Amino acid sequence: MVGIGIVGLGYWGPNLVRNFNAAQQAEVRCVADRDASRLAKIHSLYPAVDLLQEATEVFERSDVDAVVLATPINTHFELAKMALLAGKHVLVEKPLATSRAEVLELMDIADQKGLQIMVDHTFLYTGAVQKIKSLVDSGEIGDLHYFDSTRINLGLFNPNWSVIWDLAVHDLSIFDYISSGKKPVAVSATGVSHTQMGIEDIAYITLFFNDSTIAHITSSWISPVKIRKTLIGGSKKMVIYDDVEPTEKIKIYDSGFSVSTPEDMHRFYVDYRFGDISIPKVAQTEALLGVANDFVAAILDGKTPISDRLSGLNVVTVLEAAQQSLQQRGKTISLV
Amino acid sequence: MVGIGIVGLGYWGPNLVRNFNAAQQAEVRCVADRDASRLAKIHSLYPAVDLLQEATEVFERSDVDAVVLATPINTHFELAKMALLAGKHVLVEKPLATSRAEVLELMDIADQKGLQIMVDHTFLYTGAVQKIKSLVDSGEIGDLHYFDSTRINLGLFNPNWSVIWDLAVHDLSIFDYISSGKKPVAVSATGVSHTQMGIEDIAYITLFFNDSTIAHITSSWISPVKIRKTLIGGSKKMVIYDDVEPTEKIKIYDSGFSVSTPEDMHRFYVDYRFGDISIPKVAQTEALLGVANDFVAAILDGKTPISDRLSGLNVVTVLEAAQQSLQQRGKTISLV
Amino acid sequence: MVGIGIVGLGYWGPNLVRNFNAAQQAEVRCVADRDASRLAKIHSLYPAVDLLQEATEVFERSDVDAVVLATPINTHFELAKMALLAGKHVLVEKPLATSRAEVLELMDIADQKGLQIMVDHTFLYTGAVQKIKSLVDSGEIGDLHYFDSTRINLGLFNPNWSVIWDLAVHDLSIFDYISSGKKPVAVSATGVSHTQMGIEDIAYITLFFNDSTIAHITSSWISPVKIRKTLIGGSKKMVIYDDVEPTEKIKIYDSGFSVSTPEDMHRFYVDYRFGDISIPKVAQTEALLGVANDFVAAILDGKTPISDRLSGLNVVTVLEAAQQSLQQRGKTISLV
Amino acid sequence: MVGIGIVGLGYWGPNLVRNFNAAQQAEVRCVADRDASRLAKIHSLYPAVDLLQEATEVFERSDVDAVVLATPINTHFELAKMALLAGKHVLVEKPLATSRAEVLELMDIADQKGLQIMVDHTFLYTGAVQKIKSLVDSGEIGDLHYFDSTRINLGLFNPNWSVIWDLAVHDLSIFDYISSGKKPVAVSATGVSHTQMGIEDIAYITLFFNDSTIAHITSSWISPVKIRKTLIGGSKKMVIYDDVEPTEKIKIYDSGFSVSTPEDMHRFYVDYRFGDISIPKVAQTEALLGVANDFVAAILDGKTPISDRLSGLNVVTVLEAAQQSLQQRGKTISLV
Repeated sequence: MVGIGIVGLGYWGPNLVRNFNAAQQAEVRCVADRDASRLAKIHSLYPAVDLLQEATEVFERSDVDAVVLATPINTHFELAKMALLAGKHVLVEKPLATSRAEVLELMDIADQKGLQIMVDHTFLYTGAVQKIKSLVDSGEIGDLHYFDSTRINLGLFNPNWSVIWDLAVHDLSIFDYISSGKKPVAVSATGVSHTQMGIEDIAYITLFFNDSTIAHITSSWISPVKIRKTLIGGSKKMVIYDDVEPTEKIKIYDSGFSVSTPEDMHRFYVDYRFGDISIPKVAQTEALLGVANDFVAAILDGKTPISDRLSGLNVVTVLEAAQQSLQQRGKTISLV
Repeated sequence: MVGIGIVGLGYWGPNLVRNFNAAQQAEVRCVADRDASRLAKIHSLYPAVDLLQEATEVFERSDVDAVVLATPINTHFELAKMALLAGKHVLVEKPLATSRAEVLELMDIADQKGLQIMVDHTFLYTGAVQKIKSLVDSGEIGDLHYFDSTRINLGLFNPNWSVIWDLAVHDLSIFDYISSGKKPVAVSATGVSHTQMGIEDIAYITLFFNDSTIAHITSSWISPVKIRKTLIGGSKKMVIYDDVEPTEKIKIYDSGFSVSTPEDMHRFYVDYRFGDISIPKVAQTEALLGVANDFVAAILDGKTPISDRLSGLNVVTVLEAAQQSLQQRGKTISLV
Repeated sequence: MVGIGIVGLGYWGPNLVRNFNAAQQAEVRCVADRDASRLAKIHSLYPAVDLLQEATEVFERSDVDAVVLATPINTHFELAKMALLAGKHVLVEKPLATSRAEVLELMDIADQKGLQIMVDHTFLYTGAVQKIKSLVDSGEIGDLHYFDSTRINLGLFNPNWSVIWDLAVHDLSIFDYISSGKKPVAVSATGVSHTQMGIEDIAYITLFFNDSTIAHITSSWISPVKIRKTLIGGSKKMVIYDDVEPTEKIKIYDSGFSVSTPEDMHRFYVDYRFGDISIPKVAQTEALLGVANDFVAAILDGKTPISDRLSGLNVVTVLEAAQQSLQQRGKTISLV
Repeated sequence: MVGIGIVGLGYWGPNLVRNFNAAQQAEVRCVADRDASRLAKIHSLYPAVDLLQEATEVFERSDVDAVVLATPINTHFELAKMALLAGKHVLVEKPLATSRAEVLELMDIADQKGLQIMVDHTFLYTGAVQKIKSLVDSGEIGDLHYFDSTRINLGLFNPNWSVIWDLAVHDLSIFDYISSGKKPVAVSATGVSHTQMGIEDIAYITLFFNDSTIAHITSSWISPVKIRKTLIGGSKKMVIYDDVEPTEKIKIYDSGFSVSTPEDMHRFYVDYRFGDISIPKVAQTEALLGVANDFVAAILDGKTPISDRLSGLNVVTVLEAAQQSLQQRGKTISLV
């Protein structure tokens, strides 16, 4: 049994409490938040859970084996470091930290202490992303030509971190997962802020690779409609993943093209193929429960979680570079 | 009555013949193409139209006042220049030419000879774009925050010119028109080729401005589905223009946000507004007939056409810079 | 404060507990169900609520002023009658009872005892139906031409009562409400059973009126997709209510036709009008909370609830006649 | 080579001229219409076709082997009879005639004269309906549980014949075809007229069979939107055919239910199955060209056409009974 302490009861925290409560071999021992009303709400639902005010109180508890952080982005590194140093396994809400250097330091401490550090990239645990991963891994869609993901809505502005840290983080984690950690060699990002604080509320990221794969992500807090749509083009098949669809989240298109280049290099022929479409049934299980179980399994059995620290590292590496590019109108930032 | 000669009977040429045939005060006198079967097809539909093989034969005809060019992109400049020098008004299929310098030279010759040179940016004549233009001009949508346009399908590869010259040209012309020629100060574009010839088949363009407006365009020949969707965000309202919708092409969202910054500059407040949606009925007239009538009116009455040479110049200026950026992984190209 | 006892904790019961718990001036005192696991679940969420096994135990409680019945259809009449005779106000899950005679008897007892009897036609309390009601009442859609409602999915078969008692009951209650109780003069219903038990799983109902209004309802438990779509045609405007749409539930079409008959009675002219569409924002409040508050207000203040006993009577009257017609292949059943 | 004469150049006539012009082994020799402007339009497109005013002039032509009738419904019988008596093969626009007796008389004359009489049920020749037919015939969807088809829009009122003769005729022909002529044993139809002339503009038809199959058709000229959607439920799979969809017309659902009845006959168990969905690519060929080629093949080779006279007979038989039921508020009309 793993004793869990959860820090931060804002939007996501209560979902974490609920799912760790439902997880196998885990027990939520305490929660911490400075807002008394949030604590009271948890109490009414889970009277056995201890209520604390400060994160440090959680870290000091001897009945807490593992800490879950659902606090603002800028606190992730400091709190995770403190928790690790206090001997606790740590699960951090996405993004894992705010720079590659911070993630590497956390990984280093965890290694020294023999502890797990994991990030909550929830989407990796959805039936839809699992299905796409299996389509890519089995070779069914062929070589990856492109990944084009749009995640926009009329959403809450984060006062300190641009929209890519809130939204593109999901798309980057999905890309990293389905491509088995394919490393981009450069990033270009563009965007703009519509407020005086200068935080970009709309942004576009392109990832370049050593081959002809391309990944592009659209993020926005100022769209009148909610769109969460990812196109994945392969040499054999293409997939559209529409997360807003209630039941038909994934469509697989047996369409594509093949190119033949004759001896005369100034010409080439493109053959198009328009084929059937299939909509596989995907599992409807709650993704966050998968995260909770995976974290517990990592602690108890040493199993590498799906949303592991390398996933966290890869995503933060790109976000950091993208933010630099964003502030220089798309300037190419090398990642090698 | 304006005598018209049409050069190039590929995909678009027959549509031009049909619409100039239907236009007021215009008469199609001859068409030219080296493919005899294309000429034969026009003959069966329009027996009175003379059939020629070479563009130069059209330029030599004394009964031809104006020439319409629907030939491959790389021929636009040379043929338009020859036609102007032969004393003919010229309408060129989009894009007007392949560089800003070429367009400026054509404009210069046209001025010297007192002739019209116009580009066929067909979408500007659709009921949908006309409606958006009126919404912007009337102030109904407020200040322009963003323009985000996606135009993708499984389409014909152009062997010599990247996808932006084929598809983004439409979005750029629409943006230029609805923003009344708002000038971008820089461009960043990214993309990739999936063929050995190195012609980009998927590309993304961002336009920067001196204010917080941003424009972004997604172009692709390798999408399994056809998407033509443009989001236009204003400070008061937002518009979604979905050209694939048969009847509900434009949705106007009375949704948005407003930002207030208190004295404490480290904070700001965002108020969200979710309101009604309206779907105005838009005219269903054929856009290309509008182009034809506008060209004739420019010749006869000196009326400035909607899709005028400045529209052509602005679009080509951006395309040229975007192509440079595209080949340098998003490097910012200044336009000032 | 009204003391509430809730009988039946199947699919709908727990929702009733939650909403009466949230309602103003109501307190859930006890719940009854023979299934111990259902009781346990309520206990974990609402530890203060007493747990009982039998409905009769609820009726005997002196701290219970009002009873809510969420039991199988065939028990509604008997339990409601017992509760009224025990001096309790009664809210019954739809349908109110299984025959017009039963409803009239319940109304009679309630009158004698000075008690409220009300039916839970939840949809009447949705923002969408409230909006449609206001459009009809204000005259904005004009005279009612037709009401055509489809409610189908792959759903649970009821072993004893045909699909109309489960699904058409919603559409009938909506029609009755928005038409302010417009009385049909005849019913024809058709349908079929695909099981040996002979319970119709797919059915169609047509209501006839003294004028040219028509209402038609499609019900099915055996559709591969969930459709909940209602078309309401008026002489001025038409409305489409799509309950499956997450945000755009109501579309108002300023389209229609008008007919003029010249002196020559053998001809007539139809003028068509295709106009704008508007999508009003509708309230997203929980409908069942509205039911709960309305029931309490009826008890405390004598306010006539939206989903009142006449609504229940009208709906059951039609259902009973429709079931007769259903078993005779559409035979017309007169309601006058 | 079959010489063709076409009578009636209203909405559908010119499409027939175009497709018979394109058909193999057919030559359009003449067309007839009393409206000179319609004749002129055909002349401009097909200068070789003779222009006539009266149908009888067509029947008298020795170079006409076969007559195509695209005239108002009430003229079908009389003109078809005249054409047959004049020794011409006949293709009649749907519906074949206005009563079962008329169709039988036409069939009788055709048999005596050794001529073909065929009806134009165009939809049977679409890729979508062909695909559904093959799914049913191969047993892939299992036993037919239901056929539920909606065909509504804001359409032209026919001044003399109710909406079922204009719209339901399509659905009935599709049902007859995919069910291989399954015979209904009774019909119930309901509807109403919103004009003084009493022609029903909205109508519903239910067909009953000797087994638990049911077919239902919704027809309307007064819907604000165009819907053409058919649900076909089988014991193994279900199909949704949405003719308004540009590319995804057919969806096959591997969903369903199975019923088991235990010894205790008062209970039964329903097992639900929610499975994958597939969207087969269907042929995009022009259906009316298929009609034309099939008519010619019937004449030259004696091949039984897809849309044969029995299809015409079955459809008219149901329409005639449905019209009777329609005028008696759904009264069951027996067909045996």
